[in-house]
Amino acid sequence: APGQPLYGLIGKMKAVPGQRDALIAAILEGSAAMPGCLSYVVAKDADDADAIWITEVWDSEASHDASLQLPAVQASIAKAKDLVASMETGVVTTPVGGIGLKA
Amino acid sequence: APGQPLYGLIGKMKAVPGQRDALIAAILEGSAAMPGCLSYVVAKDADDADAIWITEVWDSEASHDASLQLPAVQASIAKAKDLVASMETGVVTTPVGGIGLKA
Repeated sequence: APGQPLYGLIGKMKAVPGQRDALIAAILEGSAAMPGCLSYVVAKDADDADAIWITEVWDSEASHDASLQLPAVQASIAKAKDLVASMETGVVTTPVGGIGLKA
Repeated sequence: APGQPLYGLIGKMKAVPGQRDALIAAILEGSAAMPGCLSYVVAKDADDADAIWITEVWDSEASHDASLQLPAVQASIAKAKDLVASMETGVVTTPVGGIGLKA
């Protein structure tokens, strides 16, 4: 909705050793179609073979919260649960601009 | 180029107190048109009034490095220099997928 602040998340997760690719696949599978998601990037940490970063931009916090109920996301969370060793960083942000934000 | 890994950066900066909006404006001004940039999101840290996060995805490290020579980016860096108090986090990533990556 116009005027409503965007909602962003930046998180770092450590995969169970050897399971990073499987974790990435599970996450990407679940995050393909999420209403209100303007940006969702999954990236490998270049220096830590077990770590991944997920950076997200949503048109509102409500859209993000609603996505957690989507069947595909629930399935992905269930699959990812056993592949995640730890959550390391979790930051909430208010995105204010940039490139690559789906209109 | 197809097959070439994407190049990502996640960084946290602290603005000089009271200068976060000016810093954001300077950064956005310089980052509007950068060849090879697939995603560039500037966001306020929701819990720290002086902090901003910049999350970037490039089609290659070379594209990122080349952007630093662009006049608009150089002007933006010159303007931002006096508005940045400290660089806190600087992570290099290899983005592997997601939503909102400019094709």
